[in-house]
Amino acid sequence: MKKSRLEAFSDGVIAIIITIMVLELKVPHHDGPHPADDIQSLIPLIPVFLSYVLSFIYVGIYWNNHHHMIYTVDTINGKVLWANLNLLFWLSLIPFVTAWMGESHFTKWPVIVYGVILLANSVSYGILARLLIKHSGKHSAIAEAIGKDRKGVISTLIYIVAMVTAFFCSWVGLALYWVVAVIWFIPDMRIERKLADKYPQA
Amino acid sequence: MKKSRLEAFSDGVIAIIITIMVLELKVPHHDGPHPADDIQSLIPLIPVFLSYVLSFIYVGIYWNNHHHMIYTVDTINGKVLWANLNLLFWLSLIPFVTAWMGESHFTKWPVIVYGVILLANSVSYGILARLLIKHSGKHSAIAEAIGKDRKGVISTLIYIVAMVTAFFCSWVGLALYWVVAVIWFIPDMRIERKLADKYPQA
Amino acid sequence: MKKSRLEAFSDGVIAIIITIMVLELKVPHHDGPHPADDIQSLIPLIPVFLSYVLSFIYVGIYWNNHHHMIYTVDTINGKVLWANLNLLFWLSLIPFVTAWMGESHFTKWPVIVYGVILLANSVSYGILARLLIKHSGKHSAIAEAIGKDRKGVISTLIYIVAMVTAFFCSWVGLALYWVVAVIWFIPDMRIERKLADKYPQA
Amino acid sequence: MKKSRLEAFSDGVIAIIITIMVLELKVPHHDGPHPADDIQSLIPLIPVFLSYVLSFIYVGIYWNNHHHMIYTVDTINGKVLWANLNLLFWLSLIPFVTAWMGESHFTKWPVIVYGVILLANSVSYGILARLLIKHSGKHSAIAEAIGKDRKGVISTLIYIVAMVTAFFCSWVGLALYWVVAVIWFIPDMRIERKLADKYPQA
Repeated sequence: MKKSRLEAFSDGVIAIIITIMVLELKVPHHDGPHPADDIQSLIPLIPVFLSYVLSFIYVGIYWNNHHHMIYTVDTINGKVLWANLNLLFWLSLIPFVTAWMGESHFTKWPVIVYGVILLANSVSYGILARLLIKHSGKHSAIAEAIGKDRKGVISTLIYIVAMVTAFFCSWVGLALYWVVAVIWFIPDMRIERKLADKYPQA
Repeated sequence: MKKSRLEAFSDGVIAIIITIMVLELKVPHHDGPHPADDIQSLIPLIPVFLSYVLSFIYVGIYWNNHHHMIYTVDTINGKVLWANLNLLFWLSLIPFVTAWMGESHFTKWPVIVYGVILLANSVSYGILARLLIKHSGKHSAIAEAIGKDRKGVISTLIYIVAMVTAFFCSWVGLALYWVVAVIWFIPDMRIERKLADKYPQA
Repeated sequence: MKKSRLEAFSDGVIAIIITIMVLELKVPHHDGPHPADDIQSLIPLIPVFLSYVLSFIYVGIYWNNHHHMIYTVDTINGKVLWANLNLLFWLSLIPFVTAWMGESHFTKWPVIVYGVILLANSVSYGILARLLIKHSGKHSAIAEAIGKDRKGVISTLIYIVAMVTAFFCSWVGLALYWVVAVIWFIPDMRIERKLADKYPQA
Repeated sequence: MKKSRLEAFSDGVIAIIITIMVLELKVPHHDGPHPADDIQSLIPLIPVFLSYVLSFIYVGIYWNNHHHMIYTVDTINGKVLWANLNLLFWLSLIPFVTAWMGESHFTKWPVIVYGVILLANSVSYGILARLLIKHSGKHSAIAEAIGKDRKGVISTLIYIVAMVTAFFCSWVGLALYWVVAVIWFIPDMRIERKLADKYPQA
């Protein structure tokens, strides 16, 4: 089974997810039908904006790594299609938790639920990676590139710590989500290095 | 006529349909402008969420099978283009019935109308399959793969039973929609097996 | 300049246009937060639905013909890119006039303005066709396929008649829009016939 | 690293951005549930419409130039992916500032903030161009095509002048945004000329 339509469909869904989040930035209104047009009226939008920035980076990271990972495989199978749809499902919940976290100004429960969705995405990405390795073989480029997946394990641990600490102080939890984002911000160097070895001309 | 733009356009429309459904998951509000930020405020969203899960699986199944089916043909014609647009039309109504069914907590009429749209999608998919078989010939890969289409016939029967029983108990109807989803969850093995025979290296 | 990204971008925009129209089908509400869940509550949605059906067919026709037209050319230039963006601009206004016409139950002005947008799309499509012919040469496949463009001229005349008659009876105007849709419903046979001559194996 | 998925993803995001802006054109309502259906009821939408036109042209210009620029390079790297996501991020804020500027009838602050976002897009585009030149080498097609980037520098200066003058008269600022749009309206001739030299058959 060729991978081109899986890539096209995933690109489409991720492009929509990353873009509809911005619909939460609504034109500010005082009472009445006319919008507020002074610069102060943007201040209440700052938390929504910051929440959007974090989620934009996360979805960008997922697209980036998805791009790299699918690039390393030649073919896919039916299980991979469904593992991919499962990842897209959890990614599609990010706009909701982003809006809730931003509008509620980063209070306890929205921050924790945001972490739950990040963790579910991380687990879903891991399942997809494992199925791709199984499909491609232990000595494939992807198997060597993912390796022991230390970065994935560390992220999972940080998410759990973040959710627990958010019970007591939501800002610490939020800061830890940023830490994970920074860890992944750099494109998946493990895969890029392997690719450089395998296709030196690329 | 080449099939690549049909695939690209269908991928785009299906990607948007599967993603805009999540816009029904709205940030919970008590009275007043500020959102509710306690965990209990998510409880009223559960039916909307479950309705979303079911429709996500259905749209995922349609994308999956569409992917497989178009893969088996080499060329298309004008009738196929319109049969495909007809399928996309009925798929585009899924977000509406999903929202109605979820928001009204799975009461009688929304569950029945949801079934009507599922049935219309199933019939539209069957029309597209038949036109593709007619275009490709009786001995083509797609004709052998679809065969007598027992799964399609069984689904249609279950939809009809589900809609009738939903008159008396909407939960039984809903359960039957899940049964059909499970039947189709596994990618269309008929086509995959044929493909494996025809392109053993794939 | 290659045409592949023009196709991909146009497919994306048209896919979104055709899908966001369905967002106008809103879950029915009586007074209060809970949705109406009886079958009668769908009745007020019928005009919105019929308006959606007409526009879905129109956008489908444009995608179909766009597909055929771009298929006949090998390369494009900067002017074609902008003529294509101009067409996409007018297509993007269809969801607005669709919603207005449906929600206002096909009264005079919404029906006329709907016709204005259809006419603007038709003119924009003609400009794109002419620029493509100019770029490809008088003896190219596209020039011979479009020919004297009788169907385009007839459509324009019907739109004008429809808008004038809608001043006195909006239903006649609406009926004439359906007439044009039926005329174009069949994929652009002129182009398909030429293609069959040029690429007999296709 | 191949550039095809970068193109596909960027096309998807830009297609969505350019299309969701039209959602701000809402069906006009007087008091009560029924829409206004007289022609005068469209008058209040004119500023929103004009704001949409300007932003459509800007996003169209970015897509156009992005198309040309990526076309000149053969491969990309991880930094380019992130510079591209950064550009998409700032582009994604255009629908918000477009709606704010249009709904508030082009008053001071919305016009200035619109300029801030245009400037951020311009800078982000410049960063992407510089990274692509660095990746492709000083004597690559893209390096020669971009050259000293006089048009980019002039745009930046006009944006700054526009924002300062908008403090005193927002209409002058708005007019200057139109001036920049006109400057860029013609596809990036520098790149097109270079391409014509390099690939004369194209």
